Amino acid sequence: MSATETKLGKLYGLGIGPGDPELLTLKAHRILTTVPVIAYPCMENGKVLARAIVADYIQAHQIEIPMPLPFSVERSSQPYYDLAAAKIISHLQIGQDVAVLCEGEPMLYGSFMYLFQRLAGQFPTEVVPGISSTLACADMLGVPLTFRDDVLTMIPATLKIEDLRIKLAGIDAAIILKLGRHFPKVYQVLAELGLLERAHYIEYATQPTQQIRPIREITAETVPYWSLIVIPSRGLDQNP
Amino acid sequence: MSATETKLGKLYGLGIGPGDPELLTLKAHRILTTVPVIAYPCMENGKVLARAIVADYIQAHQIEIPMPLPFSVERSSQPYYDLAAAKIISHLQIGQDVAVLCEGEPMLYGSFMYLFQRLAGQFPTEVVPGISSTLACADMLGVPLTFRDDVLTMIPATLKIEDLRIKLAGIDAAIILKLGRHFPKVYQVLAELGLLERAHYIEYATQPTQQIRPIREITAETVPYWSLIVIPSRGLDQNP
Repeated sequence: MSATETKLGKLYGLGIGPGDPELLTLKAHRILTTVPVIAYPCMENGKVLARAIVADYIQAHQIEIPMPLPFSVERSSQPYYDLAAAKIISHLQIGQDVAVLCEGEPMLYGSFMYLFQRLAGQFPTEVVPGISSTLACADMLGVPLTFRDDVLTMIPATLKIEDLRIKLAGIDAAIILKLGRHFPKVYQVLAELGLLERAHYIEYATQPTQQIRPIREITAETVPYWSLIVIPSRGLDQNP
Repeated sequence: MSATETKLGKLYGLGIGPGDPELLTLKAHRILTTVPVIAYPCMENGKVLARAIVADYIQAHQIEIPMPLPFSVERSSQPYYDLAAAKIISHLQIGQDVAVLCEGEPMLYGSFMYLFQRLAGQFPTEVVPGISSTLACADMLGVPLTFRDDVLTMIPATLKIEDLRIKLAGIDAAIILKLGRHFPKVYQVLAELGLLERAHYIEYATQPTQQIRPIREITAETVPYWSLIVIPSRGLDQNP
């Protein structure tokens, strides 16, 4: 350590919401437009959604750190996260604040969490909530999700079919996420459980490419990862 | 209908987030500061949290509609919602847009949903997503909620104890809401299921009165309705 200690930079996990740039919070917008360094995942499939969402807010003088990260998280992903963390550390150590862009809500299935685990203990860290597509989809569909005593269950479509059956049996309301190639398996379980009538399908919620389609018309080949099935509470007819 | 038809006003269900005024979205802020009419619940217990959150953004020329609503929703609440809807209709019918302030996310356990059911069929309606305290609490606590295949379950503490046992058994991650006087019942079930070690307690998340305290130190008498218990995924130690 040098004789003149440098104040450490602050790490922000910045929730930037589901896709509509206007769904950033005032707080996320303030931090995004004032930090010297912005980091964001660029997935191996070439998608850089996070940066695209906020492209209009980023200023020329801000330093950008694209972080190559694998799309799905496996044990073999560790070196990617270690490298991303090292890049971020190089700025935090010289006193520069770094905002990591997080689609949706950072602490909900977010790749940021793996950076949080590596860095939060060493540097001042703040996580800024973001609008999650898992809830915003209900607004886009115009369906109230949960009333009174209803339980809401968020279920990744990546589960085995027998686990999907268990988790979906007897639900009050549910959100099924990470659909993509897992759609046919989910569709089958919804049919078995008599839930198809209650299921709403939406893809790219709040993004310009948003589509709402009847679930029976979906062809499995076209279902993107960023799609959701929403099963709202049956309490729709409840008084008052 | 008159010979000169008036264009109907638009109804907004405006998610204003969990309490921190900076956690409004840019979109909610834009609509809030430009609509002619703002409606908000004033609960029978005297709380007008929704208006307090955005007090600094409301302008003198905007019309305000305080809506007396019962704190808990029962069948007897119907006249309150009918009256609130009638007040809103009187503005929509003469072409004035009305923004109804909704704490958190409008479609998640929100009193707005009962107005939505009455009005969305008759008037142009848009629901604007808000940050829900049920997810933002994880950011405030600094705990990643869900990894990979984890299922997240949101559970109202108002359930009967036997239902709490069923819903909490075998969870990956859970949020327990609406605690208040139901805290002792929830505490007992968490103890039975060996979940106390994993449980985090927070009240008034993101508000100036926010408090994070060890769950074993909570006295039942002091637990407000606006408190949450968070049980994050055990996947905290997962790679990468």
